[in-house]
Amino acid sequence: MTHIYAERVNCMANSAIRELLKVTEQPNVISFAGGLPAPELFPLSDIRESYDRVLGAGDPSVLQYGTTEGFLPLREEISAQMRGKGIQAEADNIFLTNGSQQGLDLIAKLFLNPGDEVLLQNPSYLGAIQTFRSYQANFRVIPTFEGIIDIPALELSLQACQPKLIYLAPTYQNPTGTTLTIEERKTIARLASQYEIPVIEDDPYGELRYEGPAIAPIKSLAAEDAVIYLGTFSKTLAPGLRLGWIVADRELITKLIVAKQGTDLHTSTLLQRATHYYLTHFNASEHIEKIRQSYKVRRDLMLAELKANFSTQVIWTEPTGGMFIWLTLPDNYDTVKLLPRALAANVAYVPGAHFFARQESSSSMRLNFSNPTALQIKQGLKALAEIVAVD
Amino acid sequence: MTHIYAERVNCMANSAIRELLKVTEQPNVISFAGGLPAPELFPLSDIRESYDRVLGAGDPSVLQYGTTEGFLPLREEISAQMRGKGIQAEADNIFLTNGSQQGLDLIAKLFLNPGDEVLLQNPSYLGAIQTFRSYQANFRVIPTFEGIIDIPALELSLQACQPKLIYLAPTYQNPTGTTLTIEERKTIARLASQYEIPVIEDDPYGELRYEGPAIAPIKSLAAEDAVIYLGTFSKTLAPGLRLGWIVADRELITKLIVAKQGTDLHTSTLLQRATHYYLTHFNASEHIEKIRQSYKVRRDLMLAELKANFSTQVIWTEPTGGMFIWLTLPDNYDTVKLLPRALAANVAYVPGAHFFARQESSSSMRLNFSNPTALQIKQGLKALAEIVAVD
Repeated sequence: MTHIYAERVNCMANSAIRELLKVTEQPNVISFAGGLPAPELFPLSDIRESYDRVLGAGDPSVLQYGTTEGFLPLREEISAQMRGKGIQAEADNIFLTNGSQQGLDLIAKLFLNPGDEVLLQNPSYLGAIQTFRSYQANFRVIPTFEGIIDIPALELSLQACQPKLIYLAPTYQNPTGTTLTIEERKTIARLASQYEIPVIEDDPYGELRYEGPAIAPIKSLAAEDAVIYLGTFSKTLAPGLRLGWIVADRELITKLIVAKQGTDLHTSTLLQRATHYYLTHFNASEHIEKIRQSYKVRRDLMLAELKANFSTQVIWTEPTGGMFIWLTLPDNYDTVKLLPRALAANVAYVPGAHFFARQESSSSMRLNFSNPTALQIKQGLKALAEIVAVD
Repeated sequence: MTHIYAERVNCMANSAIRELLKVTEQPNVISFAGGLPAPELFPLSDIRESYDRVLGAGDPSVLQYGTTEGFLPLREEISAQMRGKGIQAEADNIFLTNGSQQGLDLIAKLFLNPGDEVLLQNPSYLGAIQTFRSYQANFRVIPTFEGIIDIPALELSLQACQPKLIYLAPTYQNPTGTTLTIEERKTIARLASQYEIPVIEDDPYGELRYEGPAIAPIKSLAAEDAVIYLGTFSKTLAPGLRLGWIVADRELITKLIVAKQGTDLHTSTLLQRATHYYLTHFNASEHIEKIRQSYKVRRDLMLAELKANFSTQVIWTEPTGGMFIWLTLPDNYDTVKLLPRALAANVAYVPGAHFFARQESSSSMRLNFSNPTALQIKQGLKALAEIVAVD
């Protein structure tokens, strides 16, 4: 038989990045394409001990069904961390998810009718674009001028059309590595309340800060029900665990519970118990500091090697945190078309076009610096510069 | 601000069971309401060793992002198990999920437009009804006569309206504990192909067989693309892990990959690696045999106590496997209205009405026998019989 799929399937596209990663996983390829943390920094032995203690305590309830919202002591622990960032949150405001990707999916499921508009940065996180597309959303781009949000144009846009959600990754954004200023955040917080449009503040990289002060999350600057904050352990602990959380007002939490019941009942009890053990028995802050130091060295090296190898016609962002640099070639380049030549030279990146909700070609590319080694950064950028050969 | 939700949220209902379970979790309540495996049977030390070995092997990739379809050696292991049941499946036909509930959600996401019809047994698994409702499905009931599928009426129903999916739990069904015969299965397999309507065969309880021969899964009797089979480790290993799988044709697997990418990227790498270790280093069959023996004793006791305590006007199913007995009081009873009196006497069940997609009251109730102890079964049924007091 021929399967007759739902209409939304026409809007779903295979992740270009995950397809690309299959090519780049060959060991001779130097990949700046992935978004992978450095595996050598995973706290393998601490996580091992956490699982061992939780499974060795003689309490079989660590393997039993659990509540949909999540394990209360873990929600308490996370709410305390959130308060440390200035976000007013109790355990009842925290909802556990299978990574923050599931947070995006559940929020989209609760808010988006087909044809609804999502207002987002251009470029934006590909996984968010994919999720919103699967709910048949349309996109509207947050207007910017020279990299700064154009507030009057944004207000006009909000007045002209009522988007259903605003999606932002304000800190060390994927793919550009850029960060919204405190003024921009305050404005977004104000406009969200004024126009009654919830903001999704996606913050997977906030802890990966290499210089400068931490900037307050939008959620800490806004009315409680104006911002839905997404956090994750993927970048600070390990992505293969699949654990994230949502911070939201209690009314929305009750809706999230209903949505997740039908989606997968609840997040793994054992995973939550082991993560709680890790957070309360090991020094997570010290571990994050170790990640920061290591990634800062890689970022510095990538910036230095970019300067050494590329002409002044090529420009790039200089992120103060996160995992990515956004490099832009002169306008006549198309990084999709350039990719096969890069792969032939055993170096990979993600073409910028994949990160645009409303644009098909781009002379930009995303470069990851958290996963490659120093030697790979040197050799890979040299090879890439030879292919680009802008002079 | 007031959140403006999507239309589908109007169709979502909080799980009556999960709400009820909060009441019944008080230690003085004897609960036949849950669907929980017996925690004392969880292979705690084997799972502990599996995690310890996987995390202790010095390979950090067990904590890294993984492929969306799942860890290949685990898919190979599951496909071999499926072949043991007569299902022709290679690793490429297996797709890992966060419990089989996620399988239901992903299939509904791929197939159901608002208003599409799902044909299902009445009563059916509440979690499936919830999931289909969240995609704004309508329901049509598989016609039965004296507990047997009425094939001519079913054919008429298939001709009259083209349902998008057929949902069945053919083996030791939740909530009734009943099982479709081999003849019924062959007919369903034939009709699915003839009318080109995919069958979801949900099989969480198939391994919990207490007597009689195993009956072939519908998937083993049908064309490859006619049946989507859902399996889970929740009842044979532990539900708190959250690991299940889908068996489907390869074309559907490619769609599931796209759907899951947007939903939560992939299922936990560590969980898949540890489960693979467990399956290949411990005797899972022996463990399942231990569960079977223990649950069989509880089922026998529950059947004997029902006979000893209830009048002949009360009838119940005599399941040959699974976790549930379906008890029906005389027509003038409403088990929703009876529940507060049962709870006041510290005994809990799930009213039958919750399991009907198209019916609001019922004189039936679901009784779970896998979780309570022998003493609880004796005391609880005695208390329940006193409340019911049919004479």
